[in-house]
Amino acid sequence: MDIIKECVEALKELKERRPLVHNITNYVTVNDCANIILALGGSPVMADDISEVEDMVAIASSLVINMGTLSERTVGSMIKAGKRANQLHIPVIFDPVGVGATPYRNKVAQTLLNEIHFAVIRGNMSEIKCLNGLNVQTKGVDSVTDETGGVEVAKDLAARMNCVAAVTGKTDIITNGKAVCSIANGHPILAHVTGTGCMATALVGTYCGVVADSFIAAAAGVMTMGLAGELAQRTLQDKEGIGTFRVRLFDSVYNLGEDTIRKEGRIKLLA
Amino acid sequence: MDIIKECVEALKELKERRPLVHNITNYVTVNDCANIILALGGSPVMADDISEVEDMVAIASSLVINMGTLSERTVGSMIKAGKRANQLHIPVIFDPVGVGATPYRNKVAQTLLNEIHFAVIRGNMSEIKCLNGLNVQTKGVDSVTDETGGVEVAKDLAARMNCVAAVTGKTDIITNGKAVCSIANGHPILAHVTGTGCMATALVGTYCGVVADSFIAAAAGVMTMGLAGELAQRTLQDKEGIGTFRVRLFDSVYNLGEDTIRKEGRIKLLA
Amino acid sequence: MDIIKECVEALKELKERRPLVHNITNYVTVNDCANIILALGGSPVMADDISEVEDMVAIASSLVINMGTLSERTVGSMIKAGKRANQLHIPVIFDPVGVGATPYRNKVAQTLLNEIHFAVIRGNMSEIKCLNGLNVQTKGVDSVTDETGGVEVAKDLAARMNCVAAVTGKTDIITNGKAVCSIANGHPILAHVTGTGCMATALVGTYCGVVADSFIAAAAGVMTMGLAGELAQRTLQDKEGIGTFRVRLFDSVYNLGEDTIRKEGRIKLLA
Repeated sequence: MDIIKECVEALKELKERRPLVHNITNYVTVNDCANIILALGGSPVMADDISEVEDMVAIASSLVINMGTLSERTVGSMIKAGKRANQLHIPVIFDPVGVGATPYRNKVAQTLLNEIHFAVIRGNMSEIKCLNGLNVQTKGVDSVTDETGGVEVAKDLAARMNCVAAVTGKTDIITNGKAVCSIANGHPILAHVTGTGCMATALVGTYCGVVADSFIAAAAGVMTMGLAGELAQRTLQDKEGIGTFRVRLFDSVYNLGEDTIRKEGRIKLLA
Repeated sequence: MDIIKECVEALKELKERRPLVHNITNYVTVNDCANIILALGGSPVMADDISEVEDMVAIASSLVINMGTLSERTVGSMIKAGKRANQLHIPVIFDPVGVGATPYRNKVAQTLLNEIHFAVIRGNMSEIKCLNGLNVQTKGVDSVTDETGGVEVAKDLAARMNCVAAVTGKTDIITNGKAVCSIANGHPILAHVTGTGCMATALVGTYCGVVADSFIAAAAGVMTMGLAGELAQRTLQDKEGIGTFRVRLFDSVYNLGEDTIRKEGRIKLLA
Repeated sequence: MDIIKECVEALKELKERRPLVHNITNYVTVNDCANIILALGGSPVMADDISEVEDMVAIASSLVINMGTLSERTVGSMIKAGKRANQLHIPVIFDPVGVGATPYRNKVAQTLLNEIHFAVIRGNMSEIKCLNGLNVQTKGVDSVTDETGGVEVAKDLAARMNCVAAVTGKTDIITNGKAVCSIANGHPILAHVTGTGCMATALVGTYCGVVADSFIAAAAGVMTMGLAGELAQRTLQDKEGIGTFRVRLFDSVYNLGEDTIRKEGRIKLLA
């Protein structure tokens, strides 16, 4: 598989079809998620009331569930929307924000994993390790918090959950349990802006709206975020910081072209 | 009526009186709405708890109800605040975001139309057509989704609801059921940024806080958004996109002067 | 006490320790608060569900409670989180946004003051005067709304509540009931951007995460916001306004160095 070529095709497809992406997400980064989806060429809709999520997801091309500012009110909506999406074969993407931080967050993550089939789970290494621990259940969360063995943990989660695991960090890892690719794009300043993880997940969700293979959609979404971060950071001048960086991040996604993916995408298949 | 002159007067009045605009709105674009109201010269307050909305609206100059991220929790607050505003003769502005997308959204819009008298309803053509269909009730929504006859649909809604209908799109239409004006400002890139519709409604609400004639307030608000979009877009250089555009949108509203309205406002009375 | 030196030390400490700041806040300015905490060097977490706030605050270095978009749902969470923080000796910072505007807001503020010990209360003069009135209870709110006697009102509140009162305005006043300092940084344009008060409180909360003396933390946080406002405003050119200003505000906090505090900090001890 020529993964760069697949990502380029995915972008082309996305710009033509402008997929509707339904988000049930947090109130911290929701505006950024909407704008990054628009910047890429998708069409975002945010709706979380239990009275309408099943109808809303039915007209969408994908569903992103983000656990950032969890509340009792929206957990039920997440489950209803997720189950309906599963019935309709609409891909569901999960961002387990902050799993491991509190027992409540772990419990909700476990419930969502039990009730919904996710096409892609996108998190940082500690979140993915935590989810893997939760899922196995015989392991505690702490037993998997070391930073080694990332690829194995991701493959393990992907295989168990029959999904794609996308682990973002210095080097990103994407795996469907068998195929694995690594992405070396991005820049450390991304960690100094709130919501760059949520935005990466939103981009993955947008690609999932047009690409049947979730492995490619996840790779394309994560690489898009990394590339945008690099391009935005390069423009920064003296006295500019995360304020300007955030603005340029949206500009970079908006202007991302096939050539940039081909020239600057540092993605490779490991297995 | 010299509509440009009226809009210029409205802006002058607004800068002097800094109206307090109460918003019950969605959590996606709420920050943008607050900042655009401030940029124009108003003072925003966002409060949606049922225990305080009647007291809050009583000290405001106008009330904006935006249906973006509807939830059971806030529908009751919208009704209470709207009814109180009606009693106090404080103008209420309605943004029926996404009406037509789900049965729940249609039901809530219908309830709000039944319970509250709106001074202005601002939406895109498909939302306004949908509202008109809901209101008539004997027509289905689908029967009015064609893109022709926009002026007639807007006039019809305005006449039935005894309000001003403001329909934004390539050319905007403002009507109170009798007088009609069209506005040809704006730029297609506005559709690639989340919340530009919500912000237009917030601007209309700000003008409503100082102008007794809602037809003029709606025209001034919609034209302000269009002008800001044009001015912001003109500044964009190579590699800049929606990130920079959004920033300049606020700058443009903040710096909007009477001269710009006079020189660049493309508004005309049709009837 | 060399207050500038203390503020410089606080910033140094903060950059090294990157305190986790738990925020229970409003949905209008939450993204700005998260990004300003990150810009300064802290790590924000926003979580408000009653099922997890006690666990979340237990891993945090400080807790910021902001009353902006009050709702029944979160008042209970604020109390639970605040009480737990008090037990664990984690400093709690209070932003009584809009107190005085509605009876509900006054009632909630009173409840929070009764239930939680705050390390710092940060508000504008009218909010601080209102709180003082509430607390005394024999005085009505109106009796203290004149603009004179700011230092005395702040000292009074600080002494009664055994906290630091930080009053922001043209000149900011910080007091622990005995020591008082004034800060003359800032720029009027800050009032034309939503959330600059909330952000000042978030910065105070971030410093509180590393500095034991809340008087110094409050002074450092308020001065940081003022300096950032000045630096950002100075960069503005023709046709730039609050859009660009907001971006530069984050850049300025991100790049704030010890030298700038030493050269430009206009803080002095009054007593």
